Amino acid sequence: MEQELILLDLWVSPYTARVKIALAEKGLEYESNEEDLSNKSSLLLEMNPVYKKVPVLIHKGKPISESLIIVQYIDEVWNHKSPLLPSDPYERAHARFWADFVDKKIQGASYRLFCAPSFSEEKEAAEQEFIECCKVMEGELGKKPYFGGETFGFVDIVLITSYSYHHAHETLGSFSLVEEFPKLTAWAKRCLERESVSKSLADPNKTYEFILQIRKEKGLE
Amino acid sequence: MEQELILLDLWVSPYTARVKIALAEKGLEYESNEEDLSNKSSLLLEMNPVYKKVPVLIHKGKPISESLIIVQYIDEVWNHKSPLLPSDPYERAHARFWADFVDKKIQGASYRLFCAPSFSEEKEAAEQEFIECCKVMEGELGKKPYFGGETFGFVDIVLITSYSYHHAHETLGSFSLVEEFPKLTAWAKRCLERESVSKSLADPNKTYEFILQIRKEKGLE
Repeated sequence: MEQELILLDLWVSPYTARVKIALAEKGLEYESNEEDLSNKSSLLLEMNPVYKKVPVLIHKGKPISESLIIVQYIDEVWNHKSPLLPSDPYERAHARFWADFVDKKIQGASYRLFCAPSFSEEKEAAEQEFIECCKVMEGELGKKPYFGGETFGFVDIVLITSYSYHHAHETLGSFSLVEEFPKLTAWAKRCLERESVSKSLADPNKTYEFILQIRKEKGLE
Repeated sequence: MEQELILLDLWVSPYTARVKIALAEKGLEYESNEEDLSNKSSLLLEMNPVYKKVPVLIHKGKPISESLIIVQYIDEVWNHKSPLLPSDPYERAHARFWADFVDKKIQGASYRLFCAPSFSEEKEAAEQEFIECCKVMEGELGKKPYFGGETFGFVDIVLITSYSYHHAHETLGSFSLVEEFPKLTAWAKRCLERESVSKSLADPNKTYEFILQIRKEKGLE
């Protein structure tokens, strides 16, 4: 029997975690197919021939790729429960802007921080960029409980999945997110109280070990 | 009187051209404020404090930034005429995937091609990447008249605005887009027959001169 929903998954990916949170918010059951990135499945290569990357959500045999696009798809198809994007077009554009900012700027700086040699100028620059981006997000959050206002939504999903990496960010970097960003810290705690989030995120210690292993393999440690 | 629609504009930007095409498709009048990038207006700095970049569409005093987000906003607000994104969620996700591909891959390779020193390895690599991306788009277009099927839409808008740069791509690179990509060439011709497109695109020769000038200033020529 053709499965309704299959997620091509990877436990450590913040991008697959976004899809898991969205599916959980909508109360949807799915089959998770964990990928081995050193030996990608033929299903992944077939379903995402352009990027060959997770996450891919396969709905009734049809693939959707790229986490921001998948989350919007889930919200549009299962629109009767727990709306993730605002209904007002301006608010929706605003949410898309910040989700895009997280992807382009925060994820970019995070990646460069993890890939830079210890004590290097690149690492210092990536760390500074990461902190600047967090400042921008702290300002955007302001006094709101969630990025969209009173309810958990799109931007929260997109940003909270980098929480699994915060232990690695702080340990590889030389800053304390808790001390420097009290509003983001309180927001993250609020998000983690949701089962959809806590069950979808990777363990921070395991995530750190995973990154450390990659850094060692690349001769960065 | 507060203007209904103001576009913070730049004649040579493929990103502002996308917004102009979308506005023209919807039959919307707007005020164009041409920016001087060497002396950005205080309005631009105020309306897009995060990136300080064009395009910004100001609708009843409220700013929307990032071209893909602006085009979706225009389509959602003025949804009674000339739909740009498909109404089906799967087709919409598909259109978003390809628009994102153009932004990430084609625009990325194009930028690297223009910024690389003549006869350098970087230039060769950027050229190869650009051609590979065009092959992927040629395959995705297939036998369809437009990327979304029978009607001009989102992905067409996003890709056709790089047409102004094709003369520069071919002259700085060592390939012929017309010879290598007959389907994309026929598609571009089809798009250019639309007044919304032909009136919104920058002149290819002026665009080439603009890029050449920047390359000379950077010591790349």
